[in-house]
Amino acid sequence: MTDQESCGAALGRFIADFPADGFSPSLWHEGRRSLLNFFGGALGVAQDPAVQTALRVMAPFSGPERATVIGRAERLDAMGASFVNCIAANLLDFDDTHLETVIHPTAAVAPPLLALAELRGFSGAAVLEAFLIGAEVECRIGVSVSPGHYARGWHITSTCGVFGAAAGCARLLGLDPAQSATALGIAASQSAGLVENLPSAAKNVGMGNAARNGLLAALFAEAGYGAAPAAIEGKLGWARAMGDAPDIARITGGLGEQWEIARNTYKPYPAGIVFHAVIDACLDLRDGLGEVKEILVEGDQLLLDRGDRVLRNERDARVSIHHCAAVALLRGRAGVEDFSLAALQDPQLAALRGKVRARLDASLARGAARVTVVAPDGARRVAEVRDPRGSEARPMSDAELEKKFVQNGGTPAQARAAWGLDRCASVAAVMQAFAAQP
Amino acid sequence: MTDQESCGAALGRFIADFPADGFSPSLWHEGRRSLLNFFGGALGVAQDPAVQTALRVMAPFSGPERATVIGRAERLDAMGASFVNCIAANLLDFDDTHLETVIHPTAAVAPPLLALAELRGFSGAAVLEAFLIGAEVECRIGVSVSPGHYARGWHITSTCGVFGAAAGCARLLGLDPAQSATALGIAASQSAGLVENLPSAAKNVGMGNAARNGLLAALFAEAGYGAAPAAIEGKLGWARAMGDAPDIARITGGLGEQWEIARNTYKPYPAGIVFHAVIDACLDLRDGLGEVKEILVEGDQLLLDRGDRVLRNERDARVSIHHCAAVALLRGRAGVEDFSLAALQDPQLAALRGKVRARLDASLARGAARVTVVAPDGARRVAEVRDPRGSEARPMSDAELEKKFVQNGGTPAQARAAWGLDRCASVAAVMQAFAAQP
Repeated sequence: MTDQESCGAALGRFIADFPADGFSPSLWHEGRRSLLNFFGGALGVAQDPAVQTALRVMAPFSGPERATVIGRAERLDAMGASFVNCIAANLLDFDDTHLETVIHPTAAVAPPLLALAELRGFSGAAVLEAFLIGAEVECRIGVSVSPGHYARGWHITSTCGVFGAAAGCARLLGLDPAQSATALGIAASQSAGLVENLPSAAKNVGMGNAARNGLLAALFAEAGYGAAPAAIEGKLGWARAMGDAPDIARITGGLGEQWEIARNTYKPYPAGIVFHAVIDACLDLRDGLGEVKEILVEGDQLLLDRGDRVLRNERDARVSIHHCAAVALLRGRAGVEDFSLAALQDPQLAALRGKVRARLDASLARGAARVTVVAPDGARRVAEVRDPRGSEARPMSDAELEKKFVQNGGTPAQARAAWGLDRCASVAAVMQAFAAQP
Repeated sequence: MTDQESCGAALGRFIADFPADGFSPSLWHEGRRSLLNFFGGALGVAQDPAVQTALRVMAPFSGPERATVIGRAERLDAMGASFVNCIAANLLDFDDTHLETVIHPTAAVAPPLLALAELRGFSGAAVLEAFLIGAEVECRIGVSVSPGHYARGWHITSTCGVFGAAAGCARLLGLDPAQSATALGIAASQSAGLVENLPSAAKNVGMGNAARNGLLAALFAEAGYGAAPAAIEGKLGWARAMGDAPDIARITGGLGEQWEIARNTYKPYPAGIVFHAVIDACLDLRDGLGEVKEILVEGDQLLLDRGDRVLRNERDARVSIHHCAAVALLRGRAGVEDFSLAALQDPQLAALRGKVRARLDASLARGAARVTVVAPDGARRVAEVRDPRGSEARPMSDAELEKKFVQNGGTPAQARAAWGLDRCASVAAVMQAFAAQP
């Protein structure tokens, strides 16, 4: 960012001009991992009522040129496919996480790129480039307003997702730097989504719009619409309206050199990220587990605030200390089916949940947990986890990601298709592998 | 609103249950005036490049069942028609104004209602009912966060327009109270639009989305999606995220008894609302105007902040003290063509603009202005206007509204069609009158 340059202009230059051969092999591979994880997540919920409803509502409003809806036989135009695939990818919050912002980066960015590429014939490599550029812009804008933005009530995956989708689509469409900056400016007037709505399906609509509206922003910029030069950082612009003390310099500092999206992480369990250490500690304690009198879970205030709760539905289960601990101890796993209504009603699990007690230990780091299992004779076994599986310090391996993909219902052939996307001239052929037969 | 009832639930009851025969004749007539003014504004810019571009971008993403785009031969599905008609209605900010909030109430609300009615066969009376309900919800939500919301950078016509559109569509679709409340909750996660972007076409995208997303919210509520009960007023909900000290009680106080939309006003001039007193004062001074040495315009700080500016384009002209004063004095009028690029470049106008001086008089009320014309011999003529034409105290008459409609390019037959909407069983037939021949 030069002295005279606005933040939008610097991002526009990055989007349009970052060289196609400028991505390091490890960054490129992280993009492939993000997309594999994305496809698996969307496949896993393709039959979920929330996805069915979204498809049913959008179908009448779909133009003739249609793209793949992941895991479905129905097809929608690029707007509709972006909307529904984004909802699916993020439905269970089982997708990827940029930990500093808690943005799930891929859900809003990948769908419009895949739809555009499928319809207009862009290559898989062009999609992966555009994905890395878009997700980077998304995370950097998120960093600039964190943590105040989320704390104020903004669902950051939606509010920043629209920027990522706009940036990625601008790159894929080959917009010039000024048009790319404009796409971000138009995205700024479409950024929305509330934390209050997270326990409801209204969250899905905000997510779907982030993907759809990012594509719309790029198309309007391509067609000649303008935007304010300081739409993001201006006095009456996005960052100040939606945040309390934005740090704009973080959007552009080291742009193209340090990559936020290189820090992307993937969840081994479909539970809130702060519960992963609880699950890992319980899995560690499972070997040789005898009769249990009490399970003591200790963590910081955030863990207690989010996780010490009454269980009413699956969403509660995914953010319940008691359920996460009980399911890991009893079943030795914590997959999608272990947070279903059926699992909630499993009497053995209910009995074990009743033995879990949560307690504050403010000395524990955020995201860490200590679990103590007390036997009837008073014997205690303790496990403490600071870096859970899937965290930046202990990333999921490619093999683990592939196992998660298959557990989500993906086939080995689909995994190969996802891994091969960046070497594929025809994205349409790859997407074919993710469509259900009519 | 009963003690246990959330704000959303109270609004849901109002939307679903307010009796069809409960509107007073004067309120009903205000609704008719709002729609007449809406149609005229959209007709006036049907050939504008911004509308052409919006049509071109949206056309490929339009389902088969299509509704009228005002003043055009092309048709779009209900989402697309809502989007484009909303952009047109608000393009020049020449539409209606709820003065306390500065919301332009009709632009986002009427388009989805007209499109739905045209496609599904609702009556004109049902549309007018739904419009009054929707616009009322829109203005009340706006009142609750004013003036801090706009001051923070939110383009309130977009951010509240989505609620109005959702409420109106919920009424028209016959949703029950719970579904209607849900529609508002889903709308809350789609509320967006920035003041920073107002001088650019990005503003149009925010506006179009308000209309489109309100319809989407109602359709998702109809299809069974949920929303947080306190999406609007909750701790992490809309009002707190987007405002600094929301007064939630104003959303529901006197609901169904006092009507904000009854206070709707219409602009005689396509200039910023605070410049109307300047124009009226200059028109008053025009009779017997001789040679002019100086024109002194006095007003409050808002007038000076907004209007003392460099002129670069038509948008600047519409919020320029100098141009508004000069055009009214020289031409004796202030119509759309008097704010065109050609008018900006008119040497006689430029010369007169050079004689205008703006000065603060903090004793003047907001929206008032005093203009003093000084002759070369020092003789001074003064006009002061407190309530400009079109303000609540001096509303435009039906005849004046009809004259504005015709000046916008509407025909007398189209005016009759607009006035007759509420007595029409087939909205499709009325919309036919507003479509251009292919």
